[in-house]
Amino acid sequence: MPFSRGRVRIEELAIFGGTPIFATPRPMGQLFSPRPAEFMELVRPAFGACELTGSSDMVELLEERLATFHDVAHCITVANACVGLILLMRIFAGGRQGEVIMPSFSYRGLPHLAQWAAQMPRFCDVEEDTHVLDPALVADAIDDTITSVLVVANFNGLGKIEELIDVATARGIPLFIDSVNAFGSTHRRRRLGSFGRAETFSLHATKLLNGFEGGYITTNDDELAADVRSQRHQLGMDLNELHAALGVVSLQHYDEIVNANRKRFEAYDTVLSGLSGLRTVPYHNGEPEQYNYRMTVVEVTDRWPLTRDQTVDVLRAEGALAGPYYSPPLHRSPHAPPGLAPLTLPVTESLARRFIEMPVGDRLSLDDIAGIGELLEFVRNNAGAISQRLSAAAQS
Amino acid sequence: MPFSRGRVRIEELAIFGGTPIFATPRPMGQLFSPRPAEFMELVRPAFGACELTGSSDMVELLEERLATFHDVAHCITVANACVGLILLMRIFAGGRQGEVIMPSFSYRGLPHLAQWAAQMPRFCDVEEDTHVLDPALVADAIDDTITSVLVVANFNGLGKIEELIDVATARGIPLFIDSVNAFGSTHRRRRLGSFGRAETFSLHATKLLNGFEGGYITTNDDELAADVRSQRHQLGMDLNELHAALGVVSLQHYDEIVNANRKRFEAYDTVLSGLSGLRTVPYHNGEPEQYNYRMTVVEVTDRWPLTRDQTVDVLRAEGALAGPYYSPPLHRSPHAPPGLAPLTLPVTESLARRFIEMPVGDRLSLDDIAGIGELLEFVRNNAGAISQRLSAAAQS
Repeated sequence: MPFSRGRVRIEELAIFGGTPIFATPRPMGQLFSPRPAEFMELVRPAFGACELTGSSDMVELLEERLATFHDVAHCITVANACVGLILLMRIFAGGRQGEVIMPSFSYRGLPHLAQWAAQMPRFCDVEEDTHVLDPALVADAIDDTITSVLVVANFNGLGKIEELIDVATARGIPLFIDSVNAFGSTHRRRRLGSFGRAETFSLHATKLLNGFEGGYITTNDDELAADVRSQRHQLGMDLNELHAALGVVSLQHYDEIVNANRKRFEAYDTVLSGLSGLRTVPYHNGEPEQYNYRMTVVEVTDRWPLTRDQTVDVLRAEGALAGPYYSPPLHRSPHAPPGLAPLTLPVTESLARRFIEMPVGDRLSLDDIAGIGELLEFVRNNAGAISQRLSAAAQS
Repeated sequence: MPFSRGRVRIEELAIFGGTPIFATPRPMGQLFSPRPAEFMELVRPAFGACELTGSSDMVELLEERLATFHDVAHCITVANACVGLILLMRIFAGGRQGEVIMPSFSYRGLPHLAQWAAQMPRFCDVEEDTHVLDPALVADAIDDTITSVLVVANFNGLGKIEELIDVATARGIPLFIDSVNAFGSTHRRRRLGSFGRAETFSLHATKLLNGFEGGYITTNDDELAADVRSQRHQLGMDLNELHAALGVVSLQHYDEIVNANRKRFEAYDTVLSGLSGLRTVPYHNGEPEQYNYRMTVVEVTDRWPLTRDQTVDVLRAEGALAGPYYSPPLHRSPHAPPGLAPLTLPVTESLARRFIEMPVGDRLSLDDIAGIGELLEFVRNNAGAISQRLSAAAQS
């Protein structure tokens, strides 16, 4: 990665018109390629005989393997992960129009999905350290309009999930978890998949387990599983065998994917530990848990000389497709439902200003990460001039 | 197809324990196989570079080609065809909870999709000859609760679509069409895709255009197109490049697929024309239109010695996966919303008793069709004994 070793002037930065470090942009998704040869071997018989979607063997195989992987009674695949979330919100609402408690420090789809389930989002604040819903605030928020609680797992953990489940259970409200970012992780040494009433996972290509499209729901609740299966079929939203085959291939490479992720995460951590003002959000919290290391999220502290958004702009111009992490928060974004009452979520608003989601995944090499490190070092060493020029550009 | 030439006793029918004609069942879907080699050639660069879903070039290519094919301003693909229908119902409802006029003589998903859009289905009767919504009845049904009219195109035409559009337009109600069964057809020499406010199509493997999964919306309405594009993205329900590539390959073979379909349809027509009591529903109505010939629907008249359902049972036992066509009608099925007020739709109820949807598509050879013809001839010639034995079995 022949980056900035040669760069001596800030005009050589891509944001000021220089040549980008990465001619091909480095994205944020896992984008694991499920080995074309393996994939074709799996699907060729079906392809040749035109049997795709004529049989569900491959879908059953994936569901069995995932149920084993998650150590859960039921895995029900669906054509699209968002459809799975809508399905659960609808089932839990039982025909009522109500509200779903969810974090605002999360991804753009959530409030739209709630509205597809005829529910309004009730945004609730998260904890400063875990970035997961705060049990005390959830307890306060539950009232007669609440039909379910949607917890979003952070990439590095489930937060105080036991307390959250206790709070919801005590009030008779179903709690479910969007667990995709922590796919494969453990919480208190138990692998995610059987917490709460149900968990949902995505098989999208940007996720660790790559079926290119699709998703699944895990649950130990027999009745819920039967309901999801039945509705999925009525709606014509079964997972296609092609995606199931891709999912099976990806799952076979799980350890290899995680090991490569961990190397990249550690490379980032090493590179950034030498740069005062930036800090990688750690996976381990002292407990001997498993993680998937898919995401690298970096905290921009007060000691870093540029703003978070300036830093993102510099990185993106170089082809390092970083982004502001969960920012703006949903309750202050165009994704909030029209007419949402004004709302202050102090922790969320503070977190949403601080983090950068870095390029990661199978298209990013360790050399690339070294190059990003050198770029950031160059930025730090020339911060005064860069900042001045960026501010001038912003005002002109 | 060495069928019944040798059969002399009714005990040799599979329904009575004999060996089925088709060891591998013959399904009802198109199940066109998009040529593995062509498909891999198209997607291999993306596959190899892990670029799938990193770029939308393939999706744009498919959307451009389909817009040209349908001679329409906008084609917007979505991850799943049902999602497209829900999107349109939601947009047309504009946040109101109301009702969508739709046929009951249609497929099981419709009432569920309406409810996902926070609408109730308002079932309306169809015309005896076209099987499409009756304009006079739609006019009577429109009241303040109606948010849109969903016409379902029959495989052989759009019925009185001009009158339907006039009725809806006069009352300011958006009308859209689920056109997948007539994909590629013309109406008054204009290819489907730009009738009404919008049309929807599926890319499911059972449909003529096989992307294995996915769907798309066509419209000449710029504002509607922008709204659909924006919502699709917010929801994370963009079509995947893999499906787009499969769709592009399938579209390249459109003429070849239709020609093969036509040969199969004509083979059925020839075979059945010699069998008093069964009649293939024709495509042409005297007008020089184009059709896709994907479906073969057979009418069971009073002169046929078995009931429609007995005939279906006999066929299915032999591995010819025929089915009752749009039966039971939705308003009398488990797919009707709970608590739907009792309702009589005389034409729908009569049609729903009469038709068989026959096995079709790329997995069915002309020899297979000859075999099905001989089977039905055998059934006709031994109808008394077969009917007696079936009735006895049903009572025991």
